[in-house]
Amino acid sequence: MDLLKLNEEETAKRLESFLRKKIEKSGLTGYVIGLSGGIDSALSASIAASAVGADKVFGVLMPYSRSSQNSRDDALKLAIQLGIETRTVDISPMIDAYYGNIGQGDDIDPVRLGNKMARERMSILFDTAFELNRLVLGTSNRTEFCLGYGTWYGDVASSVNPIGMLYKTQVRQMSEYYKIPESIRTKTPTADLWPGQTDEDELGLEYARVDQLLYHLIDNGVTDRAKLNEAGFEDTLIYRAVDLLNRSYFKRHLAEIADLGLKPIPDNITISR
Amino acid sequence: MDLLKLNEEETAKRLESFLRKKIEKSGLTGYVIGLSGGIDSALSASIAASAVGADKVFGVLMPYSRSSQNSRDDALKLAIQLGIETRTVDISPMIDAYYGNIGQGDDIDPVRLGNKMARERMSILFDTAFELNRLVLGTSNRTEFCLGYGTWYGDVASSVNPIGMLYKTQVRQMSEYYKIPESIRTKTPTADLWPGQTDEDELGLEYARVDQLLYHLIDNGVTDRAKLNEAGFEDTLIYRAVDLLNRSYFKRHLAEIADLGLKPIPDNITISR
Repeated sequence: MDLLKLNEEETAKRLESFLRKKIEKSGLTGYVIGLSGGIDSALSASIAASAVGADKVFGVLMPYSRSSQNSRDDALKLAIQLGIETRTVDISPMIDAYYGNIGQGDDIDPVRLGNKMARERMSILFDTAFELNRLVLGTSNRTEFCLGYGTWYGDVASSVNPIGMLYKTQVRQMSEYYKIPESIRTKTPTADLWPGQTDEDELGLEYARVDQLLYHLIDNGVTDRAKLNEAGFEDTLIYRAVDLLNRSYFKRHLAEIADLGLKPIPDNITISR
Repeated sequence: MDLLKLNEEETAKRLESFLRKKIEKSGLTGYVIGLSGGIDSALSASIAASAVGADKVFGVLMPYSRSSQNSRDDALKLAIQLGIETRTVDISPMIDAYYGNIGQGDDIDPVRLGNKMARERMSILFDTAFELNRLVLGTSNRTEFCLGYGTWYGDVASSVNPIGMLYKTQVRQMSEYYKIPESIRTKTPTADLWPGQTDEDELGLEYARVDQLLYHLIDNGVTDRAKLNEAGFEDTLIYRAVDLLNRSYFKRHLAEIADLGLKPIPDNITISR
């Protein structure tokens, strides 16, 4: 039995209910989402469209000059299928102005460039949300959160995230349920930072394998090496995944604040009369 | 007796020790900080320079075309006094390229513009930190966190924050201790979004009064209206502050993720052998 196998209907119901409640509670008019052409944003948008209606989901395509045309085509294909409105904002002028401004040429480190792009996109999404009186929908999955595969205050930042508890394997499963176009579902996951980049090469891990391992480690609480080996996980996989998880803990929190022994700020205060 | 009065030496010692430990633990080479010319960034930079040495603190000035020259002069004055290196990055090309790109003119809502600017600055600070192999130093104080006075994933975002537990009044006290230039200490606090803007006008609250109230509400846990009135706080002040605190709870967290009953991702996993 595959431990990661979800009850699709039940899961869809919970995720859609979450998104409906968030909009009701916020008093805002819907969601804004960045559409990359990848499976995560496609699923997030599909859940939202089903939850609150396609007219309340607004997609933003934010290509950079070096982004693949293929990604853009897939993003538009999804938007048309869902019937959601989109806007395209080329981020090249802002990104290139910055690196030109500080005298850094075209040979910028691709990870550094990728972070700047991710934060520009986050900033544009929140600006669009302000303009349209909406919330920003998150698109990071649980595997990415576990491994720190994403930019702090960038692509991992949003207002609310419907798919953050789904491992990548489960994102794939739910994408079939939501009938996301096959070209999106079956392509190799990539952050599209350079031609030929793939998530799995960069992570040095296969999603199908690491998802199973993460479930054992976190959800089942198995951290004994011998037991993990018995369950079929080899040491290189175990230590690579745990290393990534431990090194990226900070991305799962806001900035650490110097402690002076004060009480944490409560979410809500009620004044008694 | 003023409840907010700090033991300056003891406080300085704790905050500096925090910053020293963070650098040691991270293995990085120092801090990057955005210098606005205001008291908060001046204090944060001063604590860092004293904690790890001026050569390990790098200041970034990020004016917009409409920013006041006065703010820039004060930022440079502080950098010279501390002996820290600085770089100036004009954010106008990136900001103007974006709003031009989406066909939005000069009459953009100042709060919306302010958010875009705050996120651009955050993004530049993290890019600079990547370039120099450093951490981004936070500059938001406890009063701002309580009242939500700041941009989510913008100025409130950083790697580590030495002054996030200090109320604004305490920032002022510590700024005297660190001998921050008088022109910075005594000027009216402003986010410098438009000429004549002041924090207190925008908040509709006086820092000296609201800090005392927040201390009563949070640190002393007094939420009874009659008791707060007795302590000298009028209803308008109480309800205004509590309303701002309650409405801004989301800014004190990362995005909310749809719950599927899974365990939270731990900060650290240790594999037993």
